[in-house]
Parts: sequence; structure tokens; C-alpha cells
Amino acid sequence: MLATVIHGERDVRVEDVPDPVLSTGGDAIVRVIAACVCGSDLWGYRGVVPTTAPRRIGHEFVGVVEEVGAEVAKIKPGDFVIAPFYDCDMTCVNCLNGVSTSCLNGGWWGADDKLGGFADGGQGQKVRVPHADGTLVATPEYPRAELIPSLLTLSDVMGTGHHAAVSAGVTKGSTVVVVGDGAVGLCAVLASARLGASRIVAMSRHESRQELARAFGATDIIAERGDEGVAAVKQLFDGIGADCVLEAVGTKESMDQAIRSARPGGMVGYVGVPNGGPELPVRPLFNSNIGVNGGVAPVRNYIEELLPDVWSGAIDPGRVFDLEVPLTEVAEAYAAMDERRAIKSLVRP
Amino acid sequence: MLATVIHGERDVRVEDVPDPVLSTGGDAIVRVIAACVCGSDLWGYRGVVPTTAPRRIGHEFVGVVEEVGAEVAKIKPGDFVIAPFYDCDMTCVNCLNGVSTSCLNGGWWGADDKLGGFADGGQGQKVRVPHADGTLVATPEYPRAELIPSLLTLSDVMGTGHHAAVSAGVTKGSTVVVVGDGAVGLCAVLASARLGASRIVAMSRHESRQELARAFGATDIIAERGDEGVAAVKQLFDGIGADCVLEAVGTKESMDQAIRSARPGGMVGYVGVPNGGPELPVRPLFNSNIGVNGGVAPVRNYIEELLPDVWSGAIDPGRVFDLEVPLTEVAEAYAAMDERRAIKSLVRP
Repeated sequence: MLATVIHGERDVRVEDVPDPVLSTGGDAIVRVIAACVCGSDLWGYRGVVPTTAPRRIGHEFVGVVEEVGAEVAKIKPGDFVIAPFYDCDMTCVNCLNGVSTSCLNGGWWGADDKLGGFADGGQGQKVRVPHADGTLVATPEYPRAELIPSLLTLSDVMGTGHHAAVSAGVTKGSTVVVVGDGAVGLCAVLASARLGASRIVAMSRHESRQELARAFGATDIIAERGDEGVAAVKQLFDGIGADCVLEAVGTKESMDQAIRSARPGGMVGYVGVPNGGPELPVRPLFNSNIGVNGGVAPVRNYIEELLPDVWSGAIDPGRVFDLEVPLTEVAEAYAAMDERRAIKSLVRP
Repeated sequence: MLATVIHGERDVRVEDVPDPVLSTGGDAIVRVIAACVCGSDLWGYRGVVPTTAPRRIGHEFVGVVEEVGAEVAKIKPGDFVIAPFYDCDMTCVNCLNGVSTSCLNGGWWGADDKLGGFADGGQGQKVRVPHADGTLVATPEYPRAELIPSLLTLSDVMGTGHHAAVSAGVTKGSTVVVVGDGAVGLCAVLASARLGASRIVAMSRHESRQELARAFGATDIIAERGDEGVAAVKQLFDGIGADCVLEAVGTKESMDQAIRSARPGGMVGYVGVPNGGPELPVRPLFNSNIGVNGGVAPVRNYIEELLPDVWSGAIDPGRVFDLEVPLTEVAEAYAAMDERRAIKSLVRP
């Protein structure tokens, strides 16, 4: 089969690789219908995280189940399924606590699972899925074509934006600031609107992203950053800042922007993978009772909650995809995001 | 009148100072019935925070109102009142948001208030109280003598322990670890029990404090610290840690202990004034979705909630006082806490 392999900086290739085979009894083979490129895939692509040896890549996909292992009880061949950006059993104590990203038996795509089988990367024709009954969620029926991009966002960005909002405690009437206008930040706007926020500020300097933020429910746009951005936020909110600030970038600057945009007693929900860390400034947090909550989003735990709203069309997070390419042109999917020509790229195997 | 003045390292004196006078219209003069020494007072006493000039000290007191300014409407002469460890108007947006420690018009005892009057330190015979209607809470009637120590804890330590628990999201059925066995840590145990925690671990190496922790509702005691302490906590809780960890010390080591004692998806509620900071390690927090919330406790906002339980005797946080001295012996109140001969010292003017 064909699958994406990253070889080094700005070098992703589609290569012929072995077809996946069932190996653990609890696994499934999924034929990928749509996959996508994540902002975090760009770390390897840009060389921020060095690629020491060629490796399979991609961790967001939806597809159709082709085969299941003997122990798989819920997932059936023919099911259309959503895979989160990691595998998990949904039976361990962490999964039951709602934190499936800390599954005691889970793992990552493009790597060996803990039972010794290989879990393929998501940007390919097929994937062997460990813990199929835990990892995968089947849709009620085969979706209409126009729903597929939105279903695909439940693999990562929509669930991650939702996690930022939940972690910051967004609820009916909350005031919200979203730092970051990538796909996750835009989904955080949508998630906040869905949860009933009364006012949502998107911090964005890009017109097309500002437009999508407004379509997703942003009531205000702030283009300024740094001190000016903080001042603009405070001016909107009684001079003190917002109840909830959602951080969806992961740099030191963006976290600083987020913390300074929260009101005393407010909460920062962060899902940007910490890139400029490693530290949070405890004293200003302490002095103003600003909490920091979030992390690597347990999106599997959110799929059941979000799927009905995607299925009904109540939310359409798939609008974050503004480029679609066939798998054979995956290099362009990366390049377009790297060069900020695309917010997020969808790949069709 | 007599009041406590700190002159330098291990040098606190009772001195004759001017009687307070009403000056702003919204203020009150309170005759102090009981005051106490805070762990944070020891910073100056120990020279950790240098004393550059003699200054009035003490920020926890209860007393009887002697006079009120012309604009004071709720508080009346003769009222027995509880003062939080800061003054606040309870009408600004931060006070209304529940964060009275960020009052836009508030301030600290032993310093000039924002209207230019002097707010006396709490360890003295009388105190001028700014924003009397906001700052002070009157008890239903003059309390029985045995209630006074517990009422005094509503000035700081009981409200601060409660804030740790609330910030960590302690609720019915929560599993809790409390790091720190000082008065605040012990009150955090009591607050957790009051909020319905199912299991409460007190981390303590001191037998008398272990006993009080058990009396306050601790179900388990862990004497180990560092890696051994973390291992002991995890062993108690499914190998993963507790839902809620309350940090009541404020050192780098104690915060590390707290973070490592929380389960994935858990929350650290911290009220220990950050002394060993200034940074929190974002990557381990992110990877395991452990949140950090809390800060300088807005105890004024909690008095109405906690007072009925103190008044009825349902909780008796005053048991943290294990030394009582007259004001003239305030130096011994400090020395006993400094030398860990006392958990917390009560001072009678």
C-alpha cells in the first residue's frame, strides 16, 4: 500500500509499504477515506524536531473498517469510523477518568503498540488500529460526502479546541479570548460558541481566518499582540480581562499573551503543544488567582459528545480545511501549511 | 495603644503607637479581641524578606466595632466582626467575581489604604478598617469564648485551606492529597472533608499534626517525601495519583511533590505563597493534563459560606491554635512558630 514517510526537513514522500495485518486479536484494519496534516506534523517537516530516520507520519484519519481481530466486539467490517490521534483501550482507569491520552495501554500512530504490533501512520491507504473497540468510534451510518471533513476534525482539531474550552471552564455566559488562529484556535472559537459563551474574542491578524472565526461565533477580533493585544482585551472586559482564555499555539509568547488576557480568578485552557516552555510564571498566576489547565487533548473521550452536532450539521468544523489533495501529492499538503497558504490540508488516499 | 512592630530579623516588639482615627467615611475602628501570627509573617521574622524599616505587622484578627464612619451602613458599633487578611470593598468587579484579593480598591493591613488613611496591622489593640461594609463580616451575636479561635481562622487559614480545596475542584467523592501540615494544610484537610472528599491523605512527618489531621478528616497519613512520597501516594490511588492535590507550603519542592501526586487529568490547588518559584514545569503538566489553580485566597468571599459551620460547631478549625499569649508576649508567639514548637499562635490584646 501507499503511505507517507518523512525523511527529513521538508522531505515527505509517498512510498510503497507493507500492507498492515491483524496481529493482536483486538485490532482492526481501516481503509483510510480521509486524513490530514496537523500543525504538530510541521515540527518534523520544519526540522524543529529532527528526523533521525525515515518514519511513517500522520495521526488524524477517518475510514472504513476492512477486518477486525477475533476479540473485537463493537466495531464491525464496513463501519465508517473516526480515529483519535492516538490509540486507547477506553477501559483503563485513565480512560474512564476522561483522560484517554494517558491510556495505560495506548500509544501513537506510526509506532509499535504496547502489544508489539505496528500501528501505521494515518497519512496512508490503510492503518492497523490497536484496541479497535476502544480507539474507534463508528458513525451511525456511512456519511454523506460533505460531512467527511467535519467528521475528520473529531480526530484532533475539533476535540482539541473543545478541550481548551472545557479546560478553561467555558460555560453559558462566559467571556472568552482565543489566542491562536490556526485550525485548533478556530475550533476553540466554535467550541466556545457551542458551550454558550456570551462573548468570544479571536486574536488574529489574517483576514481569511478572521472571517472563519466570525463564522464560527467570534464576536470580536483583535489583531494586536503583546502589550497592545492585552490592552485591547482588557478594554473589552471591564479593564480586567476575560473569564476564560484558550491558548492554541504553544509558544512562550502565546502563553504569556494568554495569561495576561485572563481576569483575576480566570482560567487559561491550553492545548498548544508547549514549544517555547518549559516554564509557567507562578507568581503572576498566584497573585491574580489565574489557573492553567489543559494539555494533550483526550479527544477520544469527546467524540460521542461532539459527533451528534457534526452529524446534524449544527457545527461544521470541517470548514477549517481549505486545501484538499490526493495522497500522492501529500508533499503539497505540508508545503501549503508550512507556507501558511493553507489553514489545514485534507488528504484523500 | 499597643501594637506589634517588626524591626528586623527575629525582632518583633510591642510598642506604643497612635490610636487609629476614622478618616474616610467608609471606615471603622475595631478593638481587637484576638489576632494571630501567620506563616507568612515568619518571612520577615526570619529575614527571608528583609525589614528595611520598622513596620506594623499582623493581618488576621477578630474584634468589636467601636466606631464607624458616616458612610458605613451595614456594620455597627458593638458588632463582633471577622476581618479577612486584606481590606476590600466587595462592590468592584473583582470582588463580585469572587476574587476580593484583587479588589480594585483594596489593600493590606499595616499600610496606607488607597484613600490615604493608614490601615493598622492586626497584631495590636485597635485597627482602622477601610471599606468597613465590604471588609468586615459581623457574627449573628457576640460569640461564646470557645468559638473565638475558630472564628479567627476565617481571617485566613480556614478560608485559605478552603480555597485550596475549591481551586482543586474538591467535591463529593474526590480523592485528595494535602501537601503541607501547617495550619493551612490542616485546614485544607478539614475543608476537603467538609466538601465531601472520599479519601484524604495528609502528608506529614509530625505526630501531633498527624493527629490533628486525622481529627479533621484525614483518612491516611504519608510521612515520606520526594520520590518515596509520590510512590506511596500512587500506591493508594490505582497507581496513578489523586484527583485533587492541595499545596499549602509554597516551595519548589512542595509544588513538585504536589504535581507528581496528581493523577492524569487531576488538579493542583495551591495556596502556599510561592517562595521557591518562580516557574511551573509546563511539559509534565501538559503531558498528563494536570491543571494548576489557586493563589492568594480570597477569604472574604468565603466567610459567609463557612461561618454557619463554625458557628454551629460543625467544624472547629480553631484547633490549629496550640499556643495562646497576651499581646505583650507576641515575641514568644513568633518564636514558638519559628522553632516549630507551635503550629499557630493566638495573641490576645
